Amino acid sequence: RIDGDRLWDTLMEMAKIGPGVAGGNNRQTLTDADAEGRALFRRWCEAAGCTMGLDGLGNMFAERAGTDPDALPVYVGSHLDTQPTGGKYDGVLGVLGGLEILRTLDDLGIRTRRPIVVTNWTNEEGTRFAPAMLASGVFAGVHAQDWAEDRTDADGKRFGDELDRIGWRGDEAVGARKMHAFFELHIEQGPILEAEGKDIGVVTHGQGLWWLQVTLTGKDAHTGSTPMEMRVNAGLGMARVTEAVHRIAMDHLPNAVGAVGQANVYPNSRNVIPGKAVFTVDFRSPDLDKLNSMRARLETEAADIAMDLGLGIEIEPVGHFDPVTFDETCVGAVRAAAERLGYSHRDIVSGAGHDACWINQVAPTAMIMCPCVDGLSHNEAEEITRDWAKAGADVLLHAVLETAEI
Amino acid sequence: RIDGDRLWDTLMEMAKIGPGVAGGNNRQTLTDADAEGRALFRRWCEAAGCTMGLDGLGNMFAERAGTDPDALPVYVGSHLDTQPTGGKYDGVLGVLGGLEILRTLDDLGIRTRRPIVVTNWTNEEGTRFAPAMLASGVFAGVHAQDWAEDRTDADGKRFGDELDRIGWRGDEAVGARKMHAFFELHIEQGPILEAEGKDIGVVTHGQGLWWLQVTLTGKDAHTGSTPMEMRVNAGLGMARVTEAVHRIAMDHLPNAVGAVGQANVYPNSRNVIPGKAVFTVDFRSPDLDKLNSMRARLETEAADIAMDLGLGIEIEPVGHFDPVTFDETCVGAVRAAAERLGYSHRDIVSGAGHDACWINQVAPTAMIMCPCVDGLSHNEAEEITRDWAKAGADVLLHAVLETAEI
Ligand SMILES: NC(=O)NCCC(=O)O
Ligand SMILES: NC(=O)NCCC(=O)O
Repeated sequence: RIDGDRLWDTLMEMAKIGPGVAGGNNRQTLTDADAEGRALFRRWCEAAGCTMGLDGLGNMFAERAGTDPDALPVYVGSHLDTQPTGGKYDGVLGVLGGLEILRTLDDLGIRTRRPIVVTNWTNEEGTRFAPAMLASGVFAGVHAQDWAEDRTDADGKRFGDELDRIGWRGDEAVGARKMHAFFELHIEQGPILEAEGKDIGVVTHGQGLWWLQVTLTGKDAHTGSTPMEMRVNAGLGMARVTEAVHRIAMDHLPNAVGAVGQANVYPNSRNVIPGKAVFTVDFRSPDLDKLNSMRARLETEAADIAMDLGLGIEIEPVGHFDPVTFDETCVGAVRAAAERLGYSHRDIVSGAGHDACWINQVAPTAMIMCPCVDGLSHNEAEEITRDWAKAGADVLLHAVLETAEI
Repeated sequence: RIDGDRLWDTLMEMAKIGPGVAGGNNRQTLTDADAEGRALFRRWCEAAGCTMGLDGLGNMFAERAGTDPDALPVYVGSHLDTQPTGGKYDGVLGVLGGLEILRTLDDLGIRTRRPIVVTNWTNEEGTRFAPAMLASGVFAGVHAQDWAEDRTDADGKRFGDELDRIGWRGDEAVGARKMHAFFELHIEQGPILEAEGKDIGVVTHGQGLWWLQVTLTGKDAHTGSTPMEMRVNAGLGMARVTEAVHRIAMDHLPNAVGAVGQANVYPNSRNVIPGKAVFTVDFRSPDLDKLNSMRARLETEAADIAMDLGLGIEIEPVGHFDPVTFDETCVGAVRAAAERLGYSHRDIVSGAGHDACWINQVAPTAMIMCPCVDGLSHNEAEEITRDWAKAGADVLLHAVLETAEI
């Protein structure tokens, strides 16, 4: 079993980097804080005797050697970047839980046949640069590297330029590594495990996602002297589409969600009718038909809303993945590990996207989830208990040991 | 008659300062661009032989002496600050039209009994610091000076600090000056005069206004893994209140308008359900009962929307004025001037708020409007013709001459 206190201390140490405003973290990808977090992780890995690989998108690979030089490694890991108002565990637990299993193997003097590699994937959150899971997506061959580097943030800064700026671009070709298997430990980010009192979620599937960016174009005009019938109000259009997103998701229940996360009107002045609105839609479902049906319905309804108000409309897909089915053998290894260790568990569908969802396309993959308080995530108040973190890392250790072979 | 070409050239010269992104201006109050615009105006006024007074809120007073040292001056003027994506004429025409009438009097060698003072009022637009017409409001005794100086912009910068920073705080006590009368020339910012082919709007009344700032508080949460029934979505609340504002205004037609101009969600991330929304409501009507009824209905409906979604709600009034009735004698002087000069005219209600609306509380006041293309204002594409500008300034000249006495 892993050392729960050491894992917890490591989590708390990382959380000091890029502190948020309310007890959580703001360590967005490719910021100075991200660079600082990476440097700390590298120091820890090197202290644990690992060699650190770095690829052309800043993905980090800390390798603990195996006994068989020809065996493909077992990979574990997740991401160290956070939301602007993010928690201390989302992603971080999977990376530092991976480090903890290496430390535990060292303590116990256990050598595995296969190498074990702990990965930190760049830009998982997707909040600064859409889409989410960008660098693991390139690794898996889903996106071209050039395209990924050309993604821009809200200030127009390029992903590739920011990667160079923080000095974390490596020499390795992205996706060159071959994996025997990949395991990602992550907090649930939803309420199910806590509500049912389960220690472990055995993740069998992941929801699919559509991210759409909607731009409505009206006409800036004076709020006081422009008669109601002459207005071309992009803000009103955004309000109606936001309501439509909600209604469409409700109409697709169960197993569907939808919301508008980013919402901006221009010029954003008290006495100007917004002439432009730019906002993002997030639809998810584990059911591909529902997922595509939500997108299709929104496109129709938003076009009607725009027509009604005289607005120009553009809808651009900025993120997508199909629902995921994880590898049966890897999922079985997770379930067996939980069983063997005596942790209560249930099969679960991941509500969020994860690097594992992309890696699943190029290697046998599974995920382990632990509960989080009130199902809250993407919130600085995100919280887990020491016991939950320990149980998750214990299951990770045993699933990896079974797969990496002693 | 005034020199229409000179007036036009002066307008175009001022428009070079604080250029916008689409042919208009971004010369927001108390910015470096505002300081530059003020300096240019002062140079012009001094070249025209005026003395420049400056009060404790940066209100500028360019005075052309009269023949009677005991006579109270006639004031004219408006504002040089603009919206973030504003036009070249909103406010500017009233200030530079005032300068043009002084230049014309000089050309013609006309001395008036009363001094004539051309004023540039600070922070008319209210977009950077709410409320609008802030410094003329203090001048008229509507707001306390300390309160005005404590207004903050979106970055938390104080009005008073920004005034000091740009170096345009003067020694004069705000509101110490007494006026015989005040005339403000302004573009209509609405479609009526152009549609009816009138040269001049004789402004008899001004609409009243309520500005409300609404804050909705929900819970940041993951867009993917948070079930629909667990969401406390402040962005959805903002959408519903935005729709309510529109419906309430429509229900109060005719002579009522309403819109949401500023709209912000937090943390404004694609995969975070907004935990907070802050936005502004603008209701106007020339009818006090309608104005207050719109505000009351919104307060009820917004509270219901918040309750329904489980959101916290706070509604803060951030700007208000009652409908205005301008001075009969001054209005008569405007109408007579238009008549005498042979300009087509009609009585009109101002849809926007103006410095004249506050000054009307401390001095006999009237306004002159000229058409603008498509009724468009608070838009960089705001446009007027040379002839419209000239007609407006001609009427201003004659109304002032009648009031200042030769
Ligand atoms: N796990 C997680 O929050 N990933 C970010 C991508 C998503 O929104 O699902
Ligand atoms: N004239 C003008 O646009 N003033 C700003 C205040 C208002 O919104 O009415």
